[in-house]
Amino acid sequence: MSEVHPLQAVYEPLAVSVRNLIDVAIRTEADAATVLAATELIDAANRELSVALMPDSFGLRTTPDGQGTAWGNVAIGVRNPVAPPLVVHHEADGRVWTEFVLGAAYEGPAGHVHGGVCALVLDHVLGATAHQPGRPAYTGTLTVRYLRGTRLGALSAHARVARVEGVKTFAVGEISDDRGVTVQAEGVFIHPKQPPPSEAEESPAG
Amino acid sequence: MSEVHPLQAVYEPLAVSVRNLIDVAIRTEADAATVLAATELIDAANRELSVALMPDSFGLRTTPDGQGTAWGNVAIGVRNPVAPPLVVHHEADGRVWTEFVLGAAYEGPAGHVHGGVCALVLDHVLGATAHQPGRPAYTGTLTVRYLRGTRLGALSAHARVARVEGVKTFAVGEISDDRGVTVQAEGVFIHPKQPPPSEAEESPAG
Repeated sequence: MSEVHPLQAVYEPLAVSVRNLIDVAIRTEADAATVLAATELIDAANRELSVALMPDSFGLRTTPDGQGTAWGNVAIGVRNPVAPPLVVHHEADGRVWTEFVLGAAYEGPAGHVHGGVCALVLDHVLGATAHQPGRPAYTGTLTVRYLRGTRLGALSAHARVARVEGVKTFAVGEISDDRGVTVQAEGVFIHPKQPPPSEAEESPAG
Repeated sequence: MSEVHPLQAVYEPLAVSVRNLIDVAIRTEADAATVLAATELIDAANRELSVALMPDSFGLRTTPDGQGTAWGNVAIGVRNPVAPPLVVHHEADGRVWTEFVLGAAYEGPAGHVHGGVCALVLDHVLGATAHQPGRPAYTGTLTVRYLRGTRLGALSAHARVARVEGVKTFAVGEISDDRGVTVQAEGVFIHPKQPPPSEAEESPAG
């Protein structure tokens, strides 16, 4: 077990609370006075947290023990309340998988996951087959096939490398619910030989 | 100008506050005591809003004037703090476009929009070319080509119908920044002749 970074113990519960708030803000049927009072509490929290802000975005930061963190990432970032967040598991044979729950915040068609959110999950999980520490991979092409609607709830995603050609990794994968596969994808992920200046920072696939 | 639904005046500012909070929660560098105090305010707001919650997700609801609303939609929902939210414009010739700003909450590679978020935007905007009131369209296939990294900031997306074959609409489109196109997409969107039972609710593309 690697040690949890001390700051994570402060910021991760904040993200968890905001993640809950997103869900509740969508689903509340409280009356106008209650919503107004809650909004004032949220604005007060906003002011407190804004006393010290990093410019722009989280980016990729390094913890004191030298590990890179992508806590702001929209798919996996433990500090990003928009992220489910995905916990991506890597098997010894190169397969990648994750189990996750998508609620009201990810809705497209009524009761179903937005097709674009399925694409986001698949982009990240397929990309994770190609990404290596110190050797990021960027999506070149992603093709997503929707077999049927994906209901909001408990889901899983799996991906594997189909083949590698030079700097290109061809990956395939799918999202499944408890009745089987709902969405399939294939993608080409590229390890730039020399990252362009605007993307020179080391960063995870996505 | 259509009248704003009375409840929108209550719930939309709540979503705006939570949307700001997401950004601040990712970017704050406040000390542990401040973060803890803010988290307590957020949890208090959570409790207030939770006194009355709709089950599951927002779905598609109808306002008193009979208009359908997708306020919970992850791309366009004005009650969904995860949504930018996109405001999708339809031109008389069928073209669809939107201008939007993506900040820290949508990050993948450092300083850049996650490729999966680009796919989400393109899925929604291309789908909007096919969607008609009372005649929803669902994504069949989406192919996304990443020409270069898309920096966080002000962006636009455009889409148009390439051709229609029976129940299938073939759409193409792209995301652009101030220097040109960053991501291209093509998609097939399907109007089900008879929606399957699990998707019988009328709902927007996505």
